[in-house]
Amino acid sequence: MKLPSGFQCAAGRAGIKQSGKPDVALITALTPAAWALTVTTNRVKAACVTRNLEQLHSHHPIRAIIINSGNANCATGAAGARTNTQLAQLAATRLDVTDNEVITASTGVIGHQLSLEGIKSTLPTLTLSDDCDAAAEAILTTDLVTKTAGVNLPNGASIVGFAKGSGMIHPNMATMLAFVMTDAAISQERLRELWREIVNQSFNQITVDGDTSTNDMAVVLSSGHIDADEDALRRGLLAVCQQLAQKIARDGEGANKLITVNVIGAETDVDARRAAKAIVRSPLVKSAAHGNDPNWGRILSAIGQEGVDADYNALTITVQGELLFAGKPLEFDAEHVSHKMNHSDLRIDVDLKHGNGQGQAWGCDLSAQYVHINADYHT
Amino acid sequence: MKLPSGFQCAAGRAGIKQSGKPDVALITALTPAAWALTVTTNRVKAACVTRNLEQLHSHHPIRAIIINSGNANCATGAAGARTNTQLAQLAATRLDVTDNEVITASTGVIGHQLSLEGIKSTLPTLTLSDDCDAAAEAILTTDLVTKTAGVNLPNGASIVGFAKGSGMIHPNMATMLAFVMTDAAISQERLRELWREIVNQSFNQITVDGDTSTNDMAVVLSSGHIDADEDALRRGLLAVCQQLAQKIARDGEGANKLITVNVIGAETDVDARRAAKAIVRSPLVKSAAHGNDPNWGRILSAIGQEGVDADYNALTITVQGELLFAGKPLEFDAEHVSHKMNHSDLRIDVDLKHGNGQGQAWGCDLSAQYVHINADYHT
Repeated sequence: MKLPSGFQCAAGRAGIKQSGKPDVALITALTPAAWALTVTTNRVKAACVTRNLEQLHSHHPIRAIIINSGNANCATGAAGARTNTQLAQLAATRLDVTDNEVITASTGVIGHQLSLEGIKSTLPTLTLSDDCDAAAEAILTTDLVTKTAGVNLPNGASIVGFAKGSGMIHPNMATMLAFVMTDAAISQERLRELWREIVNQSFNQITVDGDTSTNDMAVVLSSGHIDADEDALRRGLLAVCQQLAQKIARDGEGANKLITVNVIGAETDVDARRAAKAIVRSPLVKSAAHGNDPNWGRILSAIGQEGVDADYNALTITVQGELLFAGKPLEFDAEHVSHKMNHSDLRIDVDLKHGNGQGQAWGCDLSAQYVHINADYHT
Repeated sequence: MKLPSGFQCAAGRAGIKQSGKPDVALITALTPAAWALTVTTNRVKAACVTRNLEQLHSHHPIRAIIINSGNANCATGAAGARTNTQLAQLAATRLDVTDNEVITASTGVIGHQLSLEGIKSTLPTLTLSDDCDAAAEAILTTDLVTKTAGVNLPNGASIVGFAKGSGMIHPNMATMLAFVMTDAAISQERLRELWREIVNQSFNQITVDGDTSTNDMAVVLSSGHIDADEDALRRGLLAVCQQLAQKIARDGEGANKLITVNVIGAETDVDARRAAKAIVRSPLVKSAAHGNDPNWGRILSAIGQEGVDADYNALTITVQGELLFAGKPLEFDAEHVSHKMNHSDLRIDVDLKHGNGQGQAWGCDLSAQYVHINADYHT
């Protein structure tokens, strides 16, 4: 996928992955870029997360992101922090920018020191291009597919993003990473406000198993090369991030289907998002989705468990367009609904009958394969 | 198991379960009993939960509990509430007590009206005895084993309890129910204070899948027949409830092992319990337990995700007595630890190195069988 103007990417093999697959990627902005970042809420944070937050708080623009896969450089202590700083320095040298203009991202196994030898020798050989596909591939770990998304804005500006995450998690804990670039102009301050809002409606609304990694991060960069309407930019960013979020959920470990939950009638949008996420997070709902079981009781219980304000005597639950519950159980043809659920896209609609708040969340079914993937992996 | 003095139980078949297994149980106190109750935090509450809370808040003693399995009488509207009241009335008539002296508990499928015909005809035929085993069996749903526990106190008093719950949940949502009886004397007010403390250290510290049912309840009754030391009573209640909690966790759907997590060094006991429960709730930890994978990274991440205060650069993680992490990854023989994990009892010890708070939680491994049970069930 072609990058917005002002950006280039590169990718290569640094020997971090035992498989020999690509494991290092570079993103560079040809001029200083406005940026915003959200990171994991986990109290255990990898060195890259900690250092990036420091850069974020100094408010200067950045020029580059270097990403390695195969090793999360987490729980590696002071030595790991030094390695992370050196990783940024290697990218800065390669791109002729200052260290502080580079942020880093690592994903993979934790508790192992990351060797930089391979990256050091590979970096000078990498070719920068205006396409992000090789970089999108190099950041993957247990993902089965690369995840990219893009939209064109009026005036010729565009937004392109790529992400990884086989769910929010992967064996031995890895990570959701997302990198979004645009040439639409926006102030850094405004971009940061916007980014929080957009991440809350996209990446923060996906769940595979409720586990939050130590290395999660989502970054947006603006080269500012093209004037753009802020509302168009906002809608474009939301579209790109929701597409990436859905691609991550669909590629959840062992997943066979993408579950989309749409909640309306909540007191607030925040309540609607809470209810939607509670539904898509419930192992009972996820198991029922896997087995094509039109089990509205589990959906109702998930909402009640989250404690969301609703009119529980009136709320409606619809699965694949079939109304199953409206304040009381309705008669329905279970075999017919089950047949409609046997699809790679499953849609659950809930009207809480309590207000005008609305929100969505995305997840995947829980399969026996999930357990096999996560039980049979050894450090 | 023989009941404490002042209590009798009975059980029978009312035709609610299609299998024809016992599905109705009675507990009666021969004189008005002091009692305490905790119920589900789910916003969707079954009729029995709502009515019992009303009785609780009127502070009068009670004489009986009637329990049916096979139908949760939940999401059944006003008709279901009337049925629940009639259920209490049937027990009151059988035992010659007032309606308000009877509380109720239902467990099983939801969204179906409960027919009382079978209970009505069966109740007069039931024989009360001073043994609880038949009642303990009659309250089961998908449980594989009955769950009883008892301790003797000084002075000849005793505590006996029985419980059900194949995990916190079961297909189409059922329930954790626990009933504990003692003849040790205690004021109702003090019993209620004590009960909250004890439930927080036992039933509230088990998790199979994080889902909370609409019908969960734990009840304690005191006939007050024998004077007792309050501290001995407290310790006895805690022992009985923790045993029942462990039996529920061990019988979790698809479970092969009981996981016990012991946390010390927290700022407070509440923090320790939060950390312990976060570990035992994590699908990644549960999958690793299933696969005998000594994956300390998932344990560390679960603590961090819960946001518990700890010295993350010093905390220790021990699995089956093997120290795996102490502020940094330690060298260990993974095959040896994995071999020790291949046991029906798995113990995880964590020292947060941050204070004197301690707490425990219990859960079970996540097996492919869990998914099969919950995916292949149809309403």
